[in-house]
Amino acid sequence: MTQRPKLYLAGPDVFLPNAAEIGRRKKELCESFGFEGLYPLDNEAMRSFADESPDAFIYRANVAMIRDADAGIVNLTPFRGVSADAGTAFELGLLTGLNRPVFAYSNDADSLLDRTKRNGMAAFDAATSSWRDPHGLLIEDFGNADNLMLTEALAAQGGVLMRIDAQGRLDELAGFTACLEEARKYFSV
Amino acid sequence: MTQRPKLYLAGPDVFLPNAAEIGRRKKELCESFGFEGLYPLDNEAMRSFADESPDAFIYRANVAMIRDADAGIVNLTPFRGVSADAGTAFELGLLTGLNRPVFAYSNDADSLLDRTKRNGMAAFDAATSSWRDPHGLLIEDFGNADNLMLTEALAAQGGVLMRIDAQGRLDELAGFTACLEEARKYFSV
Repeated sequence: MTQRPKLYLAGPDVFLPNAAEIGRRKKELCESFGFEGLYPLDNEAMRSFADESPDAFIYRANVAMIRDADAGIVNLTPFRGVSADAGTAFELGLLTGLNRPVFAYSNDADSLLDRTKRNGMAAFDAATSSWRDPHGLLIEDFGNADNLMLTEALAAQGGVLMRIDAQGRLDELAGFTACLEEARKYFSV
Repeated sequence: MTQRPKLYLAGPDVFLPNAAEIGRRKKELCESFGFEGLYPLDNEAMRSFADESPDAFIYRANVAMIRDADAGIVNLTPFRGVSADAGTAFELGLLTGLNRPVFAYSNDADSLLDRTKRNGMAAFDAATSSWRDPHGLLIEDFGNADNLMLTEALAAQGGVLMRIDAQGRLDELAGFTACLEEARKYFSV
């Protein structure tokens, strides 16, 4: 029997009160699709064995899992603002640098601009024909779900970005499941 | 004469109303330290020549610059919230995946937790002995400037994170200059 492809499961899910349960459910879903899921929280139990600071240890363990993974599924749902979690964006970049295919979902279906408008933080500046936030900072207007570096990375890595209308809930797994469908096609498992 | 090392200049500076001027100043500072600065905005002028969508073109051009760079200087100043710009975090991840040294600065000297407290978004949860935001989401309490994946990446890549007390202004360049000092030591230029 061949080894199942490994998927690194990135996202701010690890900050949820029920992070461990979400991790278990995600890994079970991976199993049911023929994959092995690598969930960041798995490492936390080993912290006390490590002869280094907890943050350095978690970083090292997560990076080791990312390097060990054949692909990633990334939760880009907005986190404490209009964009994805910074740690998750970092991991998407790392996966891209390592040339791994990535499949992503966001549980907020709006574009970055529409979301910023919805939060009352966008105004049209006629002088520059562009949308700006209250600090005058440009808001990208490409219809993308987030900053173009994130959304175009997915296109370049052969992946998808599922935009799910789920009020931005971090624990909704329909988009995650849709990513597993895409990963199954990609790996023909 | 040997070629000057190239530095990719990541950050949300590109969204400032005076982005082009900041880019020019940053590149001049690079020159004065013996480096060549690669600033993302440089590509925008070429957009109209490209037979692809502007966002896909900008992504491709920025990634090409990052791959061409010998190191990165990254502006991690909080952007529209308590954390770094998602696109910048992505680029830090990409630089890390490509094993480039990275030097970073933030123009907000506070830790992620203190910044979140300052914004009135942090409460201590006695049941779990942890700080939580209004949605019950964990706030990292390591004293780091941002999500541990970003801050530990810098340590792992041999770089620094300069925390500058500049009220979060995106265009303050003292931290950038301090990063150039570090890069000069690293490359012995």
